Amino acid sequence: MTQRIPIVEKILSANDRLAIENRARFDAAGVFTLNVMASPGAGKTSLIEKTVSALKGSLRIGMINGDIATSLDADRAAAAGAAAVQINTGGDCHLDAVMLQAALPQLDLARLDLIIVENVGNLVCPAEFQLGTHKSVLVASIPEGDDKPYKYPGMYRGVDAVVINKIDLLPYVPFRREFFKNGIEVLNPGVTQFELSCRTGEGLPAWLAWLVAQVSSTRQNSVSGHLAS
Amino acid sequence: MTQRIPIVEKILSANDRLAIENRARFDAAGVFTLNVMASPGAGKTSLIEKTVSALKGSLRIGMINGDIATSLDADRAAAAGAAAVQINTGGDCHLDAVMLQAALPQLDLARLDLIIVENVGNLVCPAEFQLGTHKSVLVASIPEGDDKPYKYPGMYRGVDAVVINKIDLLPYVPFRREFFKNGIEVLNPGVTQFELSCRTGEGLPAWLAWLVAQVSSTRQNSVSGHLAS
Repeated sequence: MTQRIPIVEKILSANDRLAIENRARFDAAGVFTLNVMASPGAGKTSLIEKTVSALKGSLRIGMINGDIATSLDADRAAAAGAAAVQINTGGDCHLDAVMLQAALPQLDLARLDLIIVENVGNLVCPAEFQLGTHKSVLVASIPEGDDKPYKYPGMYRGVDAVVINKIDLLPYVPFRREFFKNGIEVLNPGVTQFELSCRTGEGLPAWLAWLVAQVSSTRQNSVSGHLAS
Repeated sequence: MTQRIPIVEKILSANDRLAIENRARFDAAGVFTLNVMASPGAGKTSLIEKTVSALKGSLRIGMINGDIATSLDADRAAAAGAAAVQINTGGDCHLDAVMLQAALPQLDLARLDLIIVENVGNLVCPAEFQLGTHKSVLVASIPEGDDKPYKYPGMYRGVDAVVINKIDLLPYVPFRREFFKNGIEVLNPGVTQFELSCRTGEGLPAWLAWLVAQVSSTRQNSVSGHLAS
């Protein structure tokens, strides 16, 4: 197994260089970019749908979706009102900076405020590949179980926010909230957390407010940068 | 991205050779081996716990658990009554035949009837690595959503059985059973399916009967082999 490591390191380092290029393009355009990760079925697409529906009147939103196959998720984001681009990874279990860069020409960055990148459903590999996005968020879900921070530490350690989705199912499944939260706290102390239900809408406003604040901050930094230069 | 492909092919082919070796050892010992795959939180460990509890009086059961970190799952299987071995992949997103082979000396194959291998929670990579087990089963779950066969075709295509877990949540989440089943049927026509709830126990007997039949069949083949040789 050890012979794989050097190769992976080279890919990661090439990937990181491209991620830096991607970030520079986002910054130049003043568009805030968010990498959304989760295990399959935690609710990435539902969260993106709800977010686009709620914010499309006030923000210009693009969406880049990574999936092994199909454009089901990009279709849902497009139906909700985003400019959506589909990347089919053709078997790859994560998005990387190369794939993201290849998708960018299909979006007019200068005319967007927010780009949401939906990664492949996977709690392992996506955490290892920087894309160049400004922030990353992990969507966890109640029925997945309360042991996930302990079992997928790399993912929980690396994200800027954790959205805990499907809280409407709390009455129907065993879930030790303190055990779950303690696991997160050890790996990622003080990380921003949201508890919500995409199905009922409970808890969505706090998430939307956080996201809008990120977008505003990126736009202001970009304007300051342009004025200073 | 394309430069990764030859490397992966070489690893897969070396892996397949080791998988064949593993299978030969299982066959020689007359032990039936099952590779259990699923996305994080679908209920692999719960299914294994329930299975071990139900069958430990009549079968000698070993369990090999693959996880990025922790031995939480192996501990649960051991508590239920299995001889449990933990493999920590240290970041790897799947088990492979090498890791399985390294774990085998910790189990006395000749004194076991059934070995359950719990793969890393991931709907992509584990499907690409043969372990040498006799059969593989995918644990799907109702709250993951009905679109998973369409989005993770490699996993659904390659398995011998699909367990649809958490049917007790059907009243609380949107799930189009026909859409889901049609997706499976296209990828894996006629594949054995079980609908059950590890929490309530509904549907477990059919799953247990299938598993016991597999064990019996492997043991009979092994005895015939020994008699013929």
